[in-house]
Amino acid sequence: MALASAAAASETAAAVSLLPCNCKAQTRTILLQNSVPNSTTFSNSSIRSSITKFSKLRLLPVKRTHVLNQVRCSSDPYVGPDSPPLKIGIIGFGNFGQFISSAFKRQGHIVMATSRSDYSDYCQQHGIEFYRNIDALCEEQPDVILVCSSILSTETVVRSIPLHKLKPDTIFADVLSVKQFPRNLFLEVLPPGFGIVCTHPMFGPESGKHGWTGLPFVYDKFRIAEGTVQEQRCAQFLSIFEHEGCTMVEMSCEEHDRHAAGTQFITHTIGRILSHLNLESTPINTKGYETLLQLTENTVSDSFDLYYGLFMYNVNATEQIENLDRAFETVKQKLFGR
Amino acid sequence: MALASAAAASETAAAVSLLPCNCKAQTRTILLQNSVPNSTTFSNSSIRSSITKFSKLRLLPVKRTHVLNQVRCSSDPYVGPDSPPLKIGIIGFGNFGQFISSAFKRQGHIVMATSRSDYSDYCQQHGIEFYRNIDALCEEQPDVILVCSSILSTETVVRSIPLHKLKPDTIFADVLSVKQFPRNLFLEVLPPGFGIVCTHPMFGPESGKHGWTGLPFVYDKFRIAEGTVQEQRCAQFLSIFEHEGCTMVEMSCEEHDRHAAGTQFITHTIGRILSHLNLESTPINTKGYETLLQLTENTVSDSFDLYYGLFMYNVNATEQIENLDRAFETVKQKLFGR
Repeated sequence: MALASAAAASETAAAVSLLPCNCKAQTRTILLQNSVPNSTTFSNSSIRSSITKFSKLRLLPVKRTHVLNQVRCSSDPYVGPDSPPLKIGIIGFGNFGQFISSAFKRQGHIVMATSRSDYSDYCQQHGIEFYRNIDALCEEQPDVILVCSSILSTETVVRSIPLHKLKPDTIFADVLSVKQFPRNLFLEVLPPGFGIVCTHPMFGPESGKHGWTGLPFVYDKFRIAEGTVQEQRCAQFLSIFEHEGCTMVEMSCEEHDRHAAGTQFITHTIGRILSHLNLESTPINTKGYETLLQLTENTVSDSFDLYYGLFMYNVNATEQIENLDRAFETVKQKLFGR
Repeated sequence: MALASAAAASETAAAVSLLPCNCKAQTRTILLQNSVPNSTTFSNSSIRSSITKFSKLRLLPVKRTHVLNQVRCSSDPYVGPDSPPLKIGIIGFGNFGQFISSAFKRQGHIVMATSRSDYSDYCQQHGIEFYRNIDALCEEQPDVILVCSSILSTETVVRSIPLHKLKPDTIFADVLSVKQFPRNLFLEVLPPGFGIVCTHPMFGPESGKHGWTGLPFVYDKFRIAEGTVQEQRCAQFLSIFEHEGCTMVEMSCEEHDRHAAGTQFITHTIGRILSHLNLESTPINTKGYETLLQLTENTVSDSFDLYYGLFMYNVNATEQIENLDRAFETVKQKLFGR
């Protein structure tokens, strides 16, 4: 039954407008029909016009094939001390892929990786099998393909995967900071038997360097065939994060993107704005100022591409820029009067 | 010699354009001649015009009568365990006055206070003499008058002090978050024999609640008669903060205001902007987002009047708003393209 509905969802997916890639602002606006208020406060009319240009286009709704499961994953009867280790294939093995793979190794899973750059030395030191290309990795038929590429490169990467070399019930997971985009991409690209679990560890190498206890791990088991080995492996995969102490937050991709625009994207935006002020430490820093210095440092240690991805691939981000714009105007009006 | 030059400075002060009070943006612009670049990025032309309207007016320079003393105050031979306690009269006994008076009491000084509101109960509990009006407090002839009123009310408060009731070598100090303004006000209003020491404890009841160790205390002994009892009392007054563990930062009022605009004012501005976004805690807060939530909470726990004072009475604040405006425009341009 679950597999049948998965197939139905896949058909629905064919009609879904994918979130944009190779992005230009005009392309992105396809998705913004609900997020741009009529009375925009942008002073730059060209920006306003680019936002509203495609405002009549619609993002088609996505049918779920999996009802959100309130039961914590470790309570799944399939997952126990006797479960065989998972074979996890990581595609995109930059900083974040390396960071997250440490937990997989700690918990005894088999980790294989591939990436544009050569990480064979790193992998050799950490007991990970490195493959020079995606084809070779897929021939190993991992249980889980974990996409750890950047937001901007993800579509190209996923479309280049030789899916026919994988097992028909392979689980695809991702760790992107936006969630509707990879879900829609997976729905469009993957065969119907493939599982889809979208995740977002809300931490990284810096904030998670002293352990992951209490740090939020968001997941959406979007398409997992109930009562099958796929379900067992999915639970086993998610339990890795639970065992590391993460606060497990089951949440739909839509809800994630709404929250993330108002939290993570706003935070990155403030950090990016501050980075253009060239703030410096002075002999008279207040504690509040020091938190801003730290925020700026953390923000610019991430690539601009990440920030751009948070904006371009989260349908709610434009609204947050608008809110920030209005808030700044309000403060200026209060200071300068009318 | 020091007294003679103090008198000269007082004459200079008569020619000094005082920073504005009973503030309107137009009034404040008297001081902004150097801080508004020609190519302002403000979209609102009325704001721009109000800033530049008085741009030809000049803030006359202020002559110093005291060379910045690099010797730490506790090394002053006058200050020792046998020094008699100071009589400190606090004018304006709100949150900050109460907060700071606790150190004076801890170190055995005689504290008296007056305020618009009645704090007699608080004072009775804390061994402080409360006076219903400034006249009564001045009749006690404190060694130090410490002005702890809000920025916006300070000029009215200081002009209402019956100076003839005070000793001719009384020291005036303040704790405002802007420094050129109270210095200029003191220079204009006070008789030449009165000492002037401008201070800014860079902390408050919240950030200093677990002690003041390592927290910056800025001071400018602007007019203190060398080799006199006044100098001794000034050193004794400053040593209170040093004994509490503050990092003592001797700095001119000009330098303070330059640093403070780029640090404290920017921090308050970010907090004010964020307060208009109605940020909420979500199940997926990142650590960076939580620092923004905290910053917002701390900022709005201060009054808007404080923030307005930081803007209106710091000649460098407008430039910082402009910088922030440009930085936000840059980020938007990077996101939306041109």
